[in-house]
Amino acid sequence: LKLSEIARAVEGRVEGGSDPDITGVAPLDRASTSDLALFSALQYRAEATATEAGAILTSPDLAAHLPEETVRLVVPRVHAALAALIPLLYPERRPAPGVHPTAVIEPGAEVMDAASVGAYAVIGAGSYVAGGAVIGAHVVVGRDCRIGADAYLHPHVTLYDDVVLGARCIVHSGARIGSDGFGYSSSRAGHEKIRHVGRCVLGDDVEIGANTTIDRGSIGDTVIGSGTKIDNLVQVGHNVRMGEHCIVVSQVGVSGSTQLGRFVTLGGQAGIKGHIRIGDGATVAGQAGVFGDVEAGSTVSGYPARPHRESLRAQAVALKLPELMRRLRAIERAVFGKDTPEP
Amino acid sequence: LKLSEIARAVEGRVEGGSDPDITGVAPLDRASTSDLALFSALQYRAEATATEAGAILTSPDLAAHLPEETVRLVVPRVHAALAALIPLLYPERRPAPGVHPTAVIEPGAEVMDAASVGAYAVIGAGSYVAGGAVIGAHVVVGRDCRIGADAYLHPHVTLYDDVVLGARCIVHSGARIGSDGFGYSSSRAGHEKIRHVGRCVLGDDVEIGANTTIDRGSIGDTVIGSGTKIDNLVQVGHNVRMGEHCIVVSQVGVSGSTQLGRFVTLGGQAGIKGHIRIGDGATVAGQAGVFGDVEAGSTVSGYPARPHRESLRAQAVALKLPELMRRLRAIERAVFGKDTPEP
Amino acid sequence: LKLSEIARAVEGRVEGGSDPDITGVAPLDRASTSDLALFSALQYRAEATATEAGAILTSPDLAAHLPEETVRLVVPRVHAALAALIPLLYPERRPAPGVHPTAVIEPGAEVMDAASVGAYAVIGAGSYVAGGAVIGAHVVVGRDCRIGADAYLHPHVTLYDDVVLGARCIVHSGARIGSDGFGYSSSRAGHEKIRHVGRCVLGDDVEIGANTTIDRGSIGDTVIGSGTKIDNLVQVGHNVRMGEHCIVVSQVGVSGSTQLGRFVTLGGQAGIKGHIRIGDGATVAGQAGVFGDVEAGSTVSGYPARPHRESLRAQAVALKLPELMRRLRAIERAVFGKDTPEP
Repeated sequence: LKLSEIARAVEGRVEGGSDPDITGVAPLDRASTSDLALFSALQYRAEATATEAGAILTSPDLAAHLPEETVRLVVPRVHAALAALIPLLYPERRPAPGVHPTAVIEPGAEVMDAASVGAYAVIGAGSYVAGGAVIGAHVVVGRDCRIGADAYLHPHVTLYDDVVLGARCIVHSGARIGSDGFGYSSSRAGHEKIRHVGRCVLGDDVEIGANTTIDRGSIGDTVIGSGTKIDNLVQVGHNVRMGEHCIVVSQVGVSGSTQLGRFVTLGGQAGIKGHIRIGDGATVAGQAGVFGDVEAGSTVSGYPARPHRESLRAQAVALKLPELMRRLRAIERAVFGKDTPEP
Repeated sequence: LKLSEIARAVEGRVEGGSDPDITGVAPLDRASTSDLALFSALQYRAEATATEAGAILTSPDLAAHLPEETVRLVVPRVHAALAALIPLLYPERRPAPGVHPTAVIEPGAEVMDAASVGAYAVIGAGSYVAGGAVIGAHVVVGRDCRIGADAYLHPHVTLYDDVVLGARCIVHSGARIGSDGFGYSSSRAGHEKIRHVGRCVLGDDVEIGANTTIDRGSIGDTVIGSGTKIDNLVQVGHNVRMGEHCIVVSQVGVSGSTQLGRFVTLGGQAGIKGHIRIGDGATVAGQAGVFGDVEAGSTVSGYPARPHRESLRAQAVALKLPELMRRLRAIERAVFGKDTPEP
Repeated sequence: LKLSEIARAVEGRVEGGSDPDITGVAPLDRASTSDLALFSALQYRAEATATEAGAILTSPDLAAHLPEETVRLVVPRVHAALAALIPLLYPERRPAPGVHPTAVIEPGAEVMDAASVGAYAVIGAGSYVAGGAVIGAHVVVGRDCRIGADAYLHPHVTLYDDVVLGARCIVHSGARIGSDGFGYSSSRAGHEKIRHVGRCVLGDDVEIGANTTIDRGSIGDTVIGSGTKIDNLVQVGHNVRMGEHCIVVSQVGVSGSTQLGRFVTLGGQAGIKGHIRIGDGATVAGQAGVFGDVEAGSTVSGYPARPHRESLRAQAVALKLPELMRRLRAIERAVFGKDTPEP
């Protein structure tokens, strides 16, 4: 594709005086003359100046840091343009519709004609797979599940019984949806299992990362709102309810019955207590330990999590603790004439 | 079922003047008139008052917070009653005994008649599956394993060679038991693998969460005591020995050769150093980093973990650090007549 | 084997006056008279004295702590000797070459004669499996992958499309290599997926733990250097580049585009921010939260991570905070005649 053709598709502007043929996208330090390279943060300025890329995709701000003769494709939002141009250069290889001869479709399961079911997949009795859905090799779907139109389940996904996936959901390899929650009736004799009879219900356009686990509800449902994206190795406890368009980064743990609003962001490895509420648009920093409700729109961090500004201030002071100790001793000597007065 | 029939089964008391038909259990805010709803914590009082549930399962204490006319099933221990009544309302759908025609039972493997083996499961040579056990679809059992009576392996579980599971163990989808531990002989040339020849031995009534990993022993065994329950995405290192009836919450990591007593609780995302001992009945708070032995019966938290009371006190003071800094400066000005005296 | 035969193979010295037959290796507290037991840390001295082992494998230093009559195999490096002697006592049971009749080899895939492909494995179109490689039961290999000579993929591994594994790589059960990275173009309308078209490229002798996830590059590659060992349940983000011979302990998360040098060690549950550099030979302590570049050869710990010495000093002072507060109040009373002066 000519760079100008790409520019038209992403509503960008070609600058720098030529219009090269582009066959791929590459990072600045590995790009060749037929690649479009991405320059999206100032910290990569040196690589952007040294790159051999045929053209650079960048924003108006960053374009100013490039030599004038650099061929560039300038767009208002670099990542939006990237999302739009990748399908032009790399057509998706979606499996053709049809059921692989080795797949097991249990009696009473229904697979629409336009769906694709891979090798050795198992679809349980009473389950329904809508048109356009892709069920990867070795996927196991339990009983009475519903998989929405154009959903994509990568190899080795497990859905337990009664899972509902909306349209266009993407579930990555090894994700487990609908496993029993961790609930017991404990006594001195031990822990008696409380069997879980709720479901997992995911909205439309949800993405679930590789090896992530989402427990079914104990008696109600675990609910993931439409448009919410969950990264790899995340744990979602029983009865959790997430709103729409949340972002949950890798290795987060959300304990049972906690509720997230819309557009909540949970940073990597954050841990969220059970039975609390996190308001719309709130952000939890990576590795934070959240023990209480979080207000809509706020940002919290640290252990225990508190408003991010407070955390930063406390961190700054914590760094000065050894110095503070020395100063305290100096005062003690001046005031009491000795090092460590008895309080 | 009549509420009174349920009450008899769980040894509870019906109050509120009527005896509705109950067909299910539901959360307070989603229950209908044929549901029994759970009211087990005061924070849900508003939902309990507003619920449309046909009846409320609760404890004597909490029952006092309900309007008098509310139909309720009062029991001494709410979660014990829940565990007992769910099987009445939701009969378990355990797979019928028999070996699916696509399962591969290697020569020398032994599967008892009353066991169930699902589609595409593989049972390795020399392994034994006791009666009543359920081997889910796509489970892979290595060589020389023993699976106890009535054990339940959900789809996609892997047992490496030489794993022993006691009676009634439940292993959730994607759990890996018996993988090699992380042990190398390291030098300037790199890291040479130490092959692991120990086993994994799980007692009776152990439950292992989805995508949890339990490494085999290097030269001895990794041992999980009877009745211990492990949540999702937990890592158990080589040669770890856990006692009976422990509770290990999601995303915990226990490093190699560490020993847990009985009834130990490890909170979510806690990290436990290798080669230490955690005494009977001890509790480790979520996200704690434990670097040394923990006394029986104690509770530790924080990084590095210390007695929970101490952690709380230190946290409280840490919150006051900026204020403490201001007070220190005030004293310095009073004593030294300047802000920051050289110590 | 006679102990003396083992000693010759590992270049060790037999001491203690006899030369027993040895049939296995065992931990000190579980060894029998035909076992060689490992004594590699002073904290196990009591067990070493009480053991029933036929002989003890130990270093010259530790040998001095044993009763004189103890039969011992003394070696300069205990773990190196262990790595060398295990194959003598426990011959590896590597599957025989050949393709299981149930395996699906898609048209255009190439499997060398000396490779082994297990039950129900799927090898995608265009992929190549070199001689000596073992593809375990239920492994799914995508399209256009390359698997090096003598590599070993345990059951239930998933390789997405375009993954390259070097010679002798070991991939444990449930690892996912090449899943999409977590990248979206976000706006008030939601999060639009950026399709990932980079690859995952692993060098030679890499080991990947059970249920670990390694995301493919967004537009470049995710690269793991030769000899690097990654433990279970680790998350490696898109475009990460790790050097050779790194050690990444369980449950670590490395965010996108971060670069590790050679011989870097990341302790368990550490979290590493994206787009940073960690220099050759650096060590990150367990549970650390790393937000900025780490110098070659340095050790960092804590949240936010800083030089380990500083962290320790700050921890020590933090422990004294309540006492420091009391001392501050004592000074205030002495200087201002009251408890809490307004600053």
